[in-house]
Amino acid sequence: MTFASRFLAVLAERGRLCVGIDPHGALLNAWGLPETAAGVREFGLRTVEAAAGRAGIVKPQVAFFERFGSAGYAALESTITAARDAGLFVIADGKRGDIGSTVAAYGEAWLSPGSPLESDAMTAYAAQGLGSLDDVLALAERHDKGVIVVTAASNPEAAATQGAIRADGRTVAAALAEEIAALPGTAGVVIGATVDLAAYGMTVEALRGVPILAPGFGAQGARLSELPRLFGAVSGQVAAASSRALLGAGPAGLGDAIDRAQAELRGATA
Amino acid sequence: MTFASRFLAVLAERGRLCVGIDPHGALLNAWGLPETAAGVREFGLRTVEAAAGRAGIVKPQVAFFERFGSAGYAALESTITAARDAGLFVIADGKRGDIGSTVAAYGEAWLSPGSPLESDAMTAYAAQGLGSLDDVLALAERHDKGVIVVTAASNPEAAATQGAIRADGRTVAAALAEEIAALPGTAGVVIGATVDLAAYGMTVEALRGVPILAPGFGAQGARLSELPRLFGAVSGQVAAASSRALLGAGPAGLGDAIDRAQAELRGATA
Repeated sequence: MTFASRFLAVLAERGRLCVGIDPHGALLNAWGLPETAAGVREFGLRTVEAAAGRAGIVKPQVAFFERFGSAGYAALESTITAARDAGLFVIADGKRGDIGSTVAAYGEAWLSPGSPLESDAMTAYAAQGLGSLDDVLALAERHDKGVIVVTAASNPEAAATQGAIRADGRTVAAALAEEIAALPGTAGVVIGATVDLAAYGMTVEALRGVPILAPGFGAQGARLSELPRLFGAVSGQVAAASSRALLGAGPAGLGDAIDRAQAELRGATA
Repeated sequence: MTFASRFLAVLAERGRLCVGIDPHGALLNAWGLPETAAGVREFGLRTVEAAAGRAGIVKPQVAFFERFGSAGYAALESTITAARDAGLFVIADGKRGDIGSTVAAYGEAWLSPGSPLESDAMTAYAAQGLGSLDDVLALAERHDKGVIVVTAASNPEAAATQGAIRADGRTVAAALAEEIAALPGTAGVVIGATVDLAAYGMTVEALRGVPILAPGFGAQGARLSELPRLFGAVSGQVAAASSRALLGAGPAGLGDAIDRAQAELRGATA
């Protein structure tokens, strides 16, 4: 099974919610945890515990662990291992990128079987072109893992680059989406929930079969119930990422918040 | 002193060579070191030892340490600490990027005083727009640290995006360079040594005073002696990054290789 088929199967079988694991300072405080590596470890493990059996996908945000250096990375390893042991599909959200043997090393870190950080997929930037990621895509293919590439982000500052017109007449975002759709199930796209695809000359049809990770639900603006309207024909391929709206419920309320979000996604119609 | 003034002072006082610390598999083997966290630690420390007193800047490539998870990060912490203790200016080459509190967390990891990974500058991608890096740029300004943004890379796959035309008529690369030049000494640019700036509608004049990190010397194609010809009026602002061409000399020959490279840079004329 390729990454794409695994991802789509998880969505179909266990719902479309992707639970973000974002232990930033304010949330650690709200949870009564210290701003230390031990704090992010506890936060990660408790979130995994709440997500297990309730959601299919978790997405640790690497930056909040990296903040504490090697100790934070040890906490991330514990979190990822606990998530995979619980049968959760893990997307390491680190937005890595580079070229050649360097980007291959990122692939070895996040996608190689047996690596302490082994995840099911990693997020990446293709700022140096999708071809810059060739070596990590090859590694992903070998291990049925995935690379989810930021394609159309919703932060306003992203629009000028994503909408820039390439020499072939396509926007940067549309060209990237088409190139990713042509890959053998090794890659997905990050598309902000509130992004106007038409503004980039993109159509959802070009994304048929492509795993879509959509941040921007919850605290960042879109409602989960809007997913079918926002993504139309490809809404079954979308993992709706939600972090603060869930995590803000605190460790005691997180499980219920995940259940409610999954129910909202199940009940959503176009 | 801002990051820009610190960077330019290092170049003027200690030469323009930036010694890459890239412990990839083939080099570890060539150095007789194991492909483990202990191997990359030893590689990092020996490279720092050889660079100390001979060069001003070192650039550890984060991916090759991240490959070994938290143990690799501990090796990176040792390498960075040894480099800073030896008075070297450290550029953490991780090409990080994200938005808001997430990118701020990367800043805390790499640029905050007292962080175990504290460096003088970090490399970043502005795939979501330079504005996506605002929070890390603010942090850099507070601590006189720097963010060096990939602006015009030389890998062929990068050209389509970098040369795409924004709604304001500028190429993605030219707009980014101009935006960076307008910042208060907090940011620099990564520009491949062999990049044809004119093809992106860029001029070296727009880069006056901007720290420039130029990979692509040595194994990747350009000769150090060509630096003045390649960068003209701004060649005094360029740190010429060289990795394999130096590291391939092995631990015993590395010091001499660095001396030769610095001499080649000093002797270079337009």
